[in-house]
Amino acid sequence: MQLDALFSPRSVAVIGASNRELTIGYRIIENLLGFGYTGKIFPVNPKGGEIRGLQAYPSILDTPDPVDVAHIVIKNTFVPDCVEDCARKGVKAVIVNTAGFREIGDEGAALEDQLRQIATDTGIRVFGPNCQGIINTDQNVRAYCNFTFTRPEPGHISIVAQSGGVGEVIHQRIAELGVGVRQYASNGNACDVSIPEIIRHFGNDEQTRVVLVHIESLPDPKTFLEAALEVSRHKPILGMKVGRTAEGAKAVSSHTGGLMKQDTAIELIFEKAGIVPFRNMEDLCQSAIGFAAQPIPTGNRVGMIANTGGPAIIATDELIEGGMTMPTLSKQTESALREKLYPEASINNPIDVLATAGPEHFAAALDALITDESIDAVFLNFVTPFFVDTLGVAREIADANRRSTKPIIATVMTEKNGWAETLDIIRQSGVPVYDMPETGARVLASMGRYATWLRRPVEDPSLETNAKTQRATDIVQSARRQGKACLSAADGYELLDCYKIPIAEYRCTTTVDECISAADEIGYPVVLKVDAEQIVHKTDSGGVALNLQDPQSLRAKAQDMLDRFSSASPGLLVQRQLTGGHEVIIGANAATGLGHVLMFGLGGIYVEVLEDVAFKLTPITPRETTEMIESLRTHKLLKGIRGQEGIDQTALATLIQRVSQMLIENPQIRELDINPVFAGPQGAVAADVRVLF
Amino acid sequence: MQLDALFSPRSVAVIGASNRELTIGYRIIENLLGFGYTGKIFPVNPKGGEIRGLQAYPSILDTPDPVDVAHIVIKNTFVPDCVEDCARKGVKAVIVNTAGFREIGDEGAALEDQLRQIATDTGIRVFGPNCQGIINTDQNVRAYCNFTFTRPEPGHISIVAQSGGVGEVIHQRIAELGVGVRQYASNGNACDVSIPEIIRHFGNDEQTRVVLVHIESLPDPKTFLEAALEVSRHKPILGMKVGRTAEGAKAVSSHTGGLMKQDTAIELIFEKAGIVPFRNMEDLCQSAIGFAAQPIPTGNRVGMIANTGGPAIIATDELIEGGMTMPTLSKQTESALREKLYPEASINNPIDVLATAGPEHFAAALDALITDESIDAVFLNFVTPFFVDTLGVAREIADANRRSTKPIIATVMTEKNGWAETLDIIRQSGVPVYDMPETGARVLASMGRYATWLRRPVEDPSLETNAKTQRATDIVQSARRQGKACLSAADGYELLDCYKIPIAEYRCTTTVDECISAADEIGYPVVLKVDAEQIVHKTDSGGVALNLQDPQSLRAKAQDMLDRFSSASPGLLVQRQLTGGHEVIIGANAATGLGHVLMFGLGGIYVEVLEDVAFKLTPITPRETTEMIESLRTHKLLKGIRGQEGIDQTALATLIQRVSQMLIENPQIRELDINPVFAGPQGAVAADVRVLF
Repeated sequence: MQLDALFSPRSVAVIGASNRELTIGYRIIENLLGFGYTGKIFPVNPKGGEIRGLQAYPSILDTPDPVDVAHIVIKNTFVPDCVEDCARKGVKAVIVNTAGFREIGDEGAALEDQLRQIATDTGIRVFGPNCQGIINTDQNVRAYCNFTFTRPEPGHISIVAQSGGVGEVIHQRIAELGVGVRQYASNGNACDVSIPEIIRHFGNDEQTRVVLVHIESLPDPKTFLEAALEVSRHKPILGMKVGRTAEGAKAVSSHTGGLMKQDTAIELIFEKAGIVPFRNMEDLCQSAIGFAAQPIPTGNRVGMIANTGGPAIIATDELIEGGMTMPTLSKQTESALREKLYPEASINNPIDVLATAGPEHFAAALDALITDESIDAVFLNFVTPFFVDTLGVAREIADANRRSTKPIIATVMTEKNGWAETLDIIRQSGVPVYDMPETGARVLASMGRYATWLRRPVEDPSLETNAKTQRATDIVQSARRQGKACLSAADGYELLDCYKIPIAEYRCTTTVDECISAADEIGYPVVLKVDAEQIVHKTDSGGVALNLQDPQSLRAKAQDMLDRFSSASPGLLVQRQLTGGHEVIIGANAATGLGHVLMFGLGGIYVEVLEDVAFKLTPITPRETTEMIESLRTHKLLKGIRGQEGIDQTALATLIQRVSQMLIENPQIRELDINPVFAGPQGAVAADVRVLF
Repeated sequence: MQLDALFSPRSVAVIGASNRELTIGYRIIENLLGFGYTGKIFPVNPKGGEIRGLQAYPSILDTPDPVDVAHIVIKNTFVPDCVEDCARKGVKAVIVNTAGFREIGDEGAALEDQLRQIATDTGIRVFGPNCQGIINTDQNVRAYCNFTFTRPEPGHISIVAQSGGVGEVIHQRIAELGVGVRQYASNGNACDVSIPEIIRHFGNDEQTRVVLVHIESLPDPKTFLEAALEVSRHKPILGMKVGRTAEGAKAVSSHTGGLMKQDTAIELIFEKAGIVPFRNMEDLCQSAIGFAAQPIPTGNRVGMIANTGGPAIIATDELIEGGMTMPTLSKQTESALREKLYPEASINNPIDVLATAGPEHFAAALDALITDESIDAVFLNFVTPFFVDTLGVAREIADANRRSTKPIIATVMTEKNGWAETLDIIRQSGVPVYDMPETGARVLASMGRYATWLRRPVEDPSLETNAKTQRATDIVQSARRQGKACLSAADGYELLDCYKIPIAEYRCTTTVDECISAADEIGYPVVLKVDAEQIVHKTDSGGVALNLQDPQSLRAKAQDMLDRFSSASPGLLVQRQLTGGHEVIIGANAATGLGHVLMFGLGGIYVEVLEDVAFKLTPITPRETTEMIESLRTHKLLKGIRGQEGIDQTALATLIQRVSQMLIENPQIRELDINPVFAGPQGAVAADVRVLF
């Protein structure tokens, strides 16, 4: 596998090794030794001698054995030559810890470009520069190629973080929570080895059960999406995306040196790739522990057990708000519980076994939930009363977990020293233990969200096979060749027509008389629109006249427009006046390195005042289209209120999917506005389109 | 002070004391001894003898000295007699730990009523029943009158929790975080000593700096509001209200035995009382630590320092989402920093001092922010690099805190054993230390919210002094005396008029001819409405005809209504047809034990589809009225979009305040609907009203 040499090196050189304790060149060797690295370590320092008891070599070329990974911690300007030497030596990958590259400006960027070029030319892999490195806890490797302080136990969580600071905080938090990590990577400026590659590497690593990703910006969103999608189909990826607020985005920009323009797009990529999104590191870490320890639920129906009511209420609120349900228990479960619990126990969901409940009561409740077919996951709230055999309860939880195919999440509220053994028994069994009901509940809800995504059948966009794709390409190419910034009305409408997108009947004309005959053919009332490349905002500049009832008013308006816009030598477009239904808008913007971000919403004040719009990435599948339409707050209006007939949602969905197809097949389109589309009980018809390059 | 004997007892009896370790009667004595209780302990047990080395007495009446507090842990049916004995003995307060009262049904409720009666008759205070008890960490008291396991250090946080389970979890979490507690109380069924009383007690306790409140239901919301308001003006109260979701509310109901109907009202009470609301226990505990340690900021402008960018971005997102701002630093600050920090450091807000920054750099940045007048609070992100003198940095933080009048919140990301001394220096100085940037940021944002509330000038409702309150009372009383469920149209309009609420001109008539002359006086177009007590939903039953343009159509409609509703012998109301402006609605519902919950929103689809409405508790002040109007998502519409003139918001606000005054002065009104009110550039005028009792 591609990155195996990097993550499982048989030997590591440290170029810039030092005996001074507060240097990175010392620290890495110290970490390798302290972590029990199983391979050979070669300090490299021009002075030779001994470093941390190991023989040092003047140059990488002097090292006696093959070297898989070389750390480089020398001055930035010396790094390119050093990487060349490493390539000559046959080093598989270098980890460039040194800073002073792209993040310091043009000069650094030039150095970084050199590194990338050497990688391309020689096949050596460059990790970094300006990065921490990697850690692999595998007992056959124990590679701590990193200068940080967290010393993880072996586990099943793998972490990749763009920011070393954030990576270390996440790593440290998981260690503090007593949970192990499998592999860790923070690749800083990422000039060669990329986050998508690392995600794929974790995806292929059998011992990794869950992948944690932190990103601040996405240089190659398409590759990221592909890699994530490939992995998330069989292994959960939990993602943290920062810079949600304008101020946060500004801080990202001053941190990474790159302006972040794709906030919405990154959210949509996470959604499309099945990455479970997190807003903060604490929830990310806590959830990682749950994902690593327990199976994914097959549905979102939770059964809860508690021995005191208050915390159960808090957990219930969080679960419901997180998208889970708490169904009524089956009659069978109820009667089994009625028999085995105290008479005062509450046989609802949550089940309150009462504070005085002992092991047999917990066993009965656990058993009931893991066999009840209306339940997909078990949530346990356990406050440890001093008068209860809590060790016995813990053993019952462990036992239930052995028998259960459903995830069991436990919240144990206790004094941790006094009840250490109780906690240990539960944790050792593989049931993750949380302090707070809200924490455990949010973890289970995040597992439920991944489960929901997993259950969705893989679906392709529904394509219009009769689309005239060649003609569409010609229209776009020809406009581009003529250096046009936008399509003419006639071309825009024809482009829609190529994809069988229904359009309100229209005629393109140039004179007043032509307008009149066009209206005669179409039938009154009609709409009159000016058509010229220079006039982008027709409505604002008085270039649209709606609802013209007769030839007189049409004639007057047509003459007026020809006069007012004479300098643009415009065409005049006569179109059927649509009525009824709702005006909706469909828009799109090209996203750098990706398809388009598609936008849908109700027109007029709904978009202007309420900003009630939904976004999806192209290509959009039928299910995504339905989700987009139904996610609007104003969806009720489309369904019809106050006895009004609802719109033909299938027709609207088909229209949206054809727009998506048009965008995918014509990536040169930079911006698209179909506004309005009339959506009514009889179908959906576009009434205006604007296509920009 | 009222509850001093309870929280600072000079002697404690335990009635039902036992030598069996797994009983509450043993545990309380064990806790009192273990916690170093400074007063006398009297075990009471019919068998006498010795318990835990202390002499036991057969009855409370046999105890040799005065007793301030007596725990009662005997069978529920024996409790009332026992409390009588205690009263006879002169015990000041009993803590009834025994369960089996209101929570088990009617029989238990009757026992509980007896306890309350004894309290009223004898003056003894009853705490509980079905409760944990109290804890006071004061070194002169050390009262652990409780059977739980958390052993708090002395501190400045006081806790009152309706649910013992939740109280214990909060208490334990704060202890685990290494922070002390001042006093603790969980009063279970609360038949006598109430949560408002305990809040007042904490308010008067000098050593309490912040009060934590957990409630599941509010038996006496008015008293709660008054007590909270009294305290929160000088001491922060942090509140946790559960049962947000329908499922959560159901769990509350099955836990407390009382149906929770006042979810919205409780939110509004928190808001009105200045209680900082929390959605989960973790945030509540973390924030309590910040409030207890640092001053309240005088504004919401945060200056941030970081030595690595990633965590600063995360903190920035949380602060901004929590309502804080991150202003640009003053020129003076910038140039001071430019001089003292590394040249590559980022002199923005956040300030990035760089990973290599030492004590002098942190000192410079801290100094700059605590003196910069555009900054109200300082937020520090500190990752501890191994090559930095972190002890020196810690000392600079401690030193800055001594000089600062602004709150300083620190996030220190480190390996806690290796950097224990660094952490200690910061904590000992009084700067709270958080693990995660998002946690610290949420804490500071919650302090900012309290600060915003504190800064609001205390404001009275603005009353219409010319209101005809006597006439209003007469209208309401007379309708009530006649047993009416609602006011007639004429009475409803007159009631509004008593409070100078503008009403669309109208006439009450009974015949078709009277209608015509009324319309002649008012001027066409007019609205015709049927008026009869039985016809509550006029519009739905065809009892409203809008926009009648002439006598012919008015006559036809009037005759039609008289015919159709003849069995109700209705009146007919003729009213001016209002046009223009926006239709808004004002509603109110009486809240049990409180004033009314007032509702405001735009009419039609805005309320029906978007549920875009705002709520406030009466009496509503001018500022609250403005907040209510401006909190609508559709507020932009009222301000005027697309060149439209905005409404006269002052007129609308005045109308709303007069409605509030009407409700306050006529508490018999159970339900009110003023729908629609026409709000336009020229003023606000009510067009229909419905008043139910």
